[in-house]
Amino acid sequence: MKYIVLTILIFAQHTFSQRQKRVRDYGIEIGVLKPGQLNAITDVHGVQVGHSTIIKGDSVRTGVTAILPHEGNIFQNKVPAAIYIGNGFGKLAGYSQVKELGNIETPIVLTNTLNVATAVDALVGYTLALPGNENVRSVNAVVGGTNDGYLNDIRGRHVNQKAVLDAIINADDGFVTEGNVGAGTGTICFGYKGGIGTASRVLPQKAGGYTLGVLVQSNFGGVLEINGVQIGKKLERYSDSFKYEADGSCMMVIITDAPLSSRNLERLAKRAMLGLAKTGGIASNGSGDYVIAVSTAESCRIPYRSEKSFKTVSTLRNEAMTPLFLATIEATEEAILNSLFAAETMTGYNEHTIKALPKKEVLQMLNKAGKLKN
Amino acid sequence: MKYIVLTILIFAQHTFSQRQKRVRDYGIEIGVLKPGQLNAITDVHGVQVGHSTIIKGDSVRTGVTAILPHEGNIFQNKVPAAIYIGNGFGKLAGYSQVKELGNIETPIVLTNTLNVATAVDALVGYTLALPGNENVRSVNAVVGGTNDGYLNDIRGRHVNQKAVLDAIINADDGFVTEGNVGAGTGTICFGYKGGIGTASRVLPQKAGGYTLGVLVQSNFGGVLEINGVQIGKKLERYSDSFKYEADGSCMMVIITDAPLSSRNLERLAKRAMLGLAKTGGIASNGSGDYVIAVSTAESCRIPYRSEKSFKTVSTLRNEAMTPLFLATIEATEEAILNSLFAAETMTGYNEHTIKALPKKEVLQMLNKAGKLKN
Amino acid sequence: MKYIVLTILIFAQHTFSQRQKRVRDYGIEIGVLKPGQLNAITDVHGVQVGHSTIIKGDSVRTGVTAILPHEGNIFQNKVPAAIYIGNGFGKLAGYSQVKELGNIETPIVLTNTLNVATAVDALVGYTLALPGNENVRSVNAVVGGTNDGYLNDIRGRHVNQKAVLDAIINADDGFVTEGNVGAGTGTICFGYKGGIGTASRVLPQKAGGYTLGVLVQSNFGGVLEINGVQIGKKLERYSDSFKYEADGSCMMVIITDAPLSSRNLERLAKRAMLGLAKTGGIASNGSGDYVIAVSTAESCRIPYRSEKSFKTVSTLRNEAMTPLFLATIEATEEAILNSLFAAETMTGYNEHTIKALPKKEVLQMLNKAGKLKN
Amino acid sequence: MKYIVLTILIFAQHTFSQRQKRVRDYGIEIGVLKPGQLNAITDVHGVQVGHSTIIKGDSVRTGVTAILPHEGNIFQNKVPAAIYIGNGFGKLAGYSQVKELGNIETPIVLTNTLNVATAVDALVGYTLALPGNENVRSVNAVVGGTNDGYLNDIRGRHVNQKAVLDAIINADDGFVTEGNVGAGTGTICFGYKGGIGTASRVLPQKAGGYTLGVLVQSNFGGVLEINGVQIGKKLERYSDSFKYEADGSCMMVIITDAPLSSRNLERLAKRAMLGLAKTGGIASNGSGDYVIAVSTAESCRIPYRSEKSFKTVSTLRNEAMTPLFLATIEATEEAILNSLFAAETMTGYNEHTIKALPKKEVLQMLNKAGKLKN
Repeated sequence: MKYIVLTILIFAQHTFSQRQKRVRDYGIEIGVLKPGQLNAITDVHGVQVGHSTIIKGDSVRTGVTAILPHEGNIFQNKVPAAIYIGNGFGKLAGYSQVKELGNIETPIVLTNTLNVATAVDALVGYTLALPGNENVRSVNAVVGGTNDGYLNDIRGRHVNQKAVLDAIINADDGFVTEGNVGAGTGTICFGYKGGIGTASRVLPQKAGGYTLGVLVQSNFGGVLEINGVQIGKKLERYSDSFKYEADGSCMMVIITDAPLSSRNLERLAKRAMLGLAKTGGIASNGSGDYVIAVSTAESCRIPYRSEKSFKTVSTLRNEAMTPLFLATIEATEEAILNSLFAAETMTGYNEHTIKALPKKEVLQMLNKAGKLKN
Repeated sequence: MKYIVLTILIFAQHTFSQRQKRVRDYGIEIGVLKPGQLNAITDVHGVQVGHSTIIKGDSVRTGVTAILPHEGNIFQNKVPAAIYIGNGFGKLAGYSQVKELGNIETPIVLTNTLNVATAVDALVGYTLALPGNENVRSVNAVVGGTNDGYLNDIRGRHVNQKAVLDAIINADDGFVTEGNVGAGTGTICFGYKGGIGTASRVLPQKAGGYTLGVLVQSNFGGVLEINGVQIGKKLERYSDSFKYEADGSCMMVIITDAPLSSRNLERLAKRAMLGLAKTGGIASNGSGDYVIAVSTAESCRIPYRSEKSFKTVSTLRNEAMTPLFLATIEATEEAILNSLFAAETMTGYNEHTIKALPKKEVLQMLNKAGKLKN
Repeated sequence: MKYIVLTILIFAQHTFSQRQKRVRDYGIEIGVLKPGQLNAITDVHGVQVGHSTIIKGDSVRTGVTAILPHEGNIFQNKVPAAIYIGNGFGKLAGYSQVKELGNIETPIVLTNTLNVATAVDALVGYTLALPGNENVRSVNAVVGGTNDGYLNDIRGRHVNQKAVLDAIINADDGFVTEGNVGAGTGTICFGYKGGIGTASRVLPQKAGGYTLGVLVQSNFGGVLEINGVQIGKKLERYSDSFKYEADGSCMMVIITDAPLSSRNLERLAKRAMLGLAKTGGIASNGSGDYVIAVSTAESCRIPYRSEKSFKTVSTLRNEAMTPLFLATIEATEEAILNSLFAAETMTGYNEHTIKALPKKEVLQMLNKAGKLKN
Repeated sequence: MKYIVLTILIFAQHTFSQRQKRVRDYGIEIGVLKPGQLNAITDVHGVQVGHSTIIKGDSVRTGVTAILPHEGNIFQNKVPAAIYIGNGFGKLAGYSQVKELGNIETPIVLTNTLNVATAVDALVGYTLALPGNENVRSVNAVVGGTNDGYLNDIRGRHVNQKAVLDAIINADDGFVTEGNVGAGTGTICFGYKGGIGTASRVLPQKAGGYTLGVLVQSNFGGVLEINGVQIGKKLERYSDSFKYEADGSCMMVIITDAPLSSRNLERLAKRAMLGLAKTGGIASNGSGDYVIAVSTAESCRIPYRSEKSFKTVSTLRNEAMTPLFLATIEATEEAILNSLFAAETMTGYNEHTIKALPKKEVLQMLNKAGKLKN
């Protein structure tokens, strides 16, 4: 049971992606805050993202995306974190310990639903093997997955531990490839091809000047809206029964350099659902909508062991949270749209085909509504 | 300390309101589902709504709104219910018992933040005094409040128990007055005058045919959007610091005749926040965003005392929830917009004035974006 | 409707109580940690406790107990806090804001179930009236109540705002009167007379040297155990159906000078239920078992308004929590037992009588089991 | 990397276990309710338990325990369920979906912390392969683990998928082997050898007559108490700092034939912590204390797919819960004690030895306190 991670294909994808125009390149401006330089989660200093894309034969369309909050040994220097469950029909490993202790101690990994355990196993192995972790005997791996079983032979569980480790090794702090890549290789969003998307916001100095980035694995439904234009309604992309069509999931990762307690990170995480709502998402019964929020502020790092029983941290007061809430909402909305604009038509399992968002038609609709900045 | 509840004024309000055009009357259609006959929470059979509006002198601008899930003795025939806390910087009485036992046993009352206790006291008295409740010694009153302290002398705590009881007595199952009425008398939404708003949805028969209504007390902020048009952004109604401007709260009440367990009612309640998001709400730090969800299905009623240790109920399966989620999102968005369209410019406490939504300008913007159905 | 707070009676109670022997005076030693000087919640520096006892005629047996975390203006200098709901069939005001913001801004008040609103109203008025709070327009009062309706004419709602304020005014940092006093005047515990009880623990220096105190309003049931001796089982104080006999509630307040985040305070609060368990409590369906936990560490205070968007705090690391968990369990168990040993036989509403714990018999049983230190 | 599951050893264990005396055989009677016939979780009709014990060479001391709620295809006939997190420093897979949907769809598997992913993978494979599940593409495996890393080479992750499947295959509805078996092979409890333990209670007919069973994997600390006798205190088995000594975890599984909603199952689950408390457990910082509660009542089963959007269920009213709460507390306490009494001295990883509970000494102490029924 070996699958070659098609590096050539990844490369092609990457090359192509560089040519891809993103939502903002088309003149679509989401919200009122400014994005960071890359308009990506990697705008937050130290954050790295890597993908393993697994495309094989007719029916394997899946992969792994890894997000590293900082470049060091995360187990030895944990980051304050929280997870919010928008709708829990999904598989996310690591929730309860993050809730209890308020921190994350591994890279965050996204993959398909039935390979969450594979990724946990890989993350545990990765953590045990890191220099400095020789005595570690307990690891809380944080892994989320969404179901790519329409385009991917998900029952075959084609992600292996090597693919997970490759995603971590591939991670860098630059441009993030979007669309049919990594954990987004086989996902579907609003009936169109979904995938990985990212965006960021930088707060005005008066609001603290912090950077906040979001990365999503979009695999959910509802009635699509783009920058307020009811695409799904106009194209009648919904049914009268709504029974399963809207199902699917969305994994959302928020990282910020703002110094936040785990309590305020949980509040931040809740706002990602508001961004999802603005794309027309409805968090249907069958959705696994999870939000993982992390602060990378160095002052907030939590050493694994410490001589002192104290930690002294500077965190934001509650009142300073509001602009970060807005940044989360905007970046989540834009990250989801970026995933849709980047994803390409894909044929996979059982000869199923999912088309890319009809960008030309969509842009005409947006233009007509005055939603394209010329 | 006596305040006359100005019934004459209520009447005037009511008369005037009947002439008011609602969002849908202007050709604004929110979502893809159809509203009920009144497009109000009272479309759900048996639901009644009543207001006490308290306007006195220069500075008292407050009131009470009561929602009765059914016409009987609610304590003796409790309704399955759940409360979801979108953001908990607010005062809502009754949360923990609803969470524990899964039901509500009093009318739901909305008022101002500093009079929540007054309303609880009134509801307790009301419940103790109802025929059949002679032996009742414990009452879990459900009361929500938002802060109307900019337009209202809130520190004066001008709501008395009579006003609460009047709201209950005034309740009927017809047309619901919106805007500057009851608990919405002194509220502010996106910097414009907010208030009470309501809307409903009827599911297609294939999705169960259920009716779901929402009533809101809108008193929150963010960057206003109306049917996808970024009003707040275009009118630059936000600041760079976002520190307190977006604060405020939103109480949302969802009632449906769909037979639901308290677990699925909690899931339903969570979706109201997605509707709020679509109006540009951001659930700012200072917000008390609470959602109360109730099923009125007769088969789900919970008798106070029963000979049997069992209850046999028919409730919807998880998969049947999705269309109700969509209905919640749509009705919440429209209820908030209805509150803004109904509310009129108000001057109150400290000569503060809050203007009504500039409907003419807004409608022009909507028209330009192709968002008005002709 | 006026009730005289019987100060003379309180005085008598107080005088009498000074003669009362507490659990530890009988040679009963709970746990392995040492109590503080007073073995009371007031061992935590700055904490004050006050009671209003309301006994009137044949049927009024109720009251108020107030706990002040520090001597200053609590609204202006909030304390980190958390509330844990052991079983939510009860009425506790203030939960959601404490959960959201992680702090408490008023004294903590305990009273009877149907007067929780009265106490909230009084606390709001008290807070608004404090010098320095002139611009305050939102107050999150924390009030818990348990049902004293067997001994007290609870439907009469005999606690007025003056009684609440008196409890606050009466508060001091010394000896805490226990038993039939304040909010414990009419409560019942394991079928015997319950009431107010308190205890404390001081950690060894190696574990941080912190002081932690607990105060309870005991009004619950189960199968009584005292220091491991099955009193309830031996005396057959339980029935085969267990339907309502075990009902009732327990309000538990934990205060410590250890510097804790609200997240770790919530973890602390959960442990009080483990202490309750050791007395034979079962958190029956009808129980309202709530735990309020507060840190008084000055370094953790949260100023209402601040020029800075940051707060810098030194809080304990997760690993340092374990001894505080043990202290909570031990102090809660002992506080409940102290309430039982202090409470005296009481006759009240409807000529109901509840007997005091049969101390002589109990002590014989404890002696036989080797549980009395001679 | 192959490990032979030492069937011979298991057999020996089994044979030996049959000779083992359990807590009740020594005259120790926990609580006031009666146990079922086997005094085991398998007293609940249809419940099956199986173990894989993995002992290899000097340092592998681990295993797997599987609990099957019923004999059919659990995915196709899900059971109502809830999980309560007593303290979340642990690894439990499957939490969020159980919380959201209120049911469990796989056997419940216990193992060591670092092999939770292995067990999830095995359960997913097992479920996909079951006849009738050919179209299943999403599986929520429920797996809990505690850390056996003192006696077991946990970093070696010696549990493989076969061991997990063997535990399921081995499962039967009879006598449950306790102590150093399955997931309890390498665990430590109060500094003594812990392991698997079980107990049950049958309610009196007046309280419904239901059966409730508990199975624990005991691996935690505190200050040991047995039937109220302070063993840990008397033997001074605790330190002044309490920093790590009390750490460890406890997985608790409750199964009952009482028909319960997921909401009431969550309430039930919370009570297991009260039983743990009575053994002297303190839910230390490093504990992963999780409780999984399931109802096997046939009327409550949830078919995977259904033509109808409804389900009609008869569940217990809230008031009928109290005796089940008591049963949970008693059975959890006794199950933990059974694990301690069954476990034998074990030497493993790094030549670490953990001694069995000194039963002779303990029994003398119990006898002296009058706690042994003759």
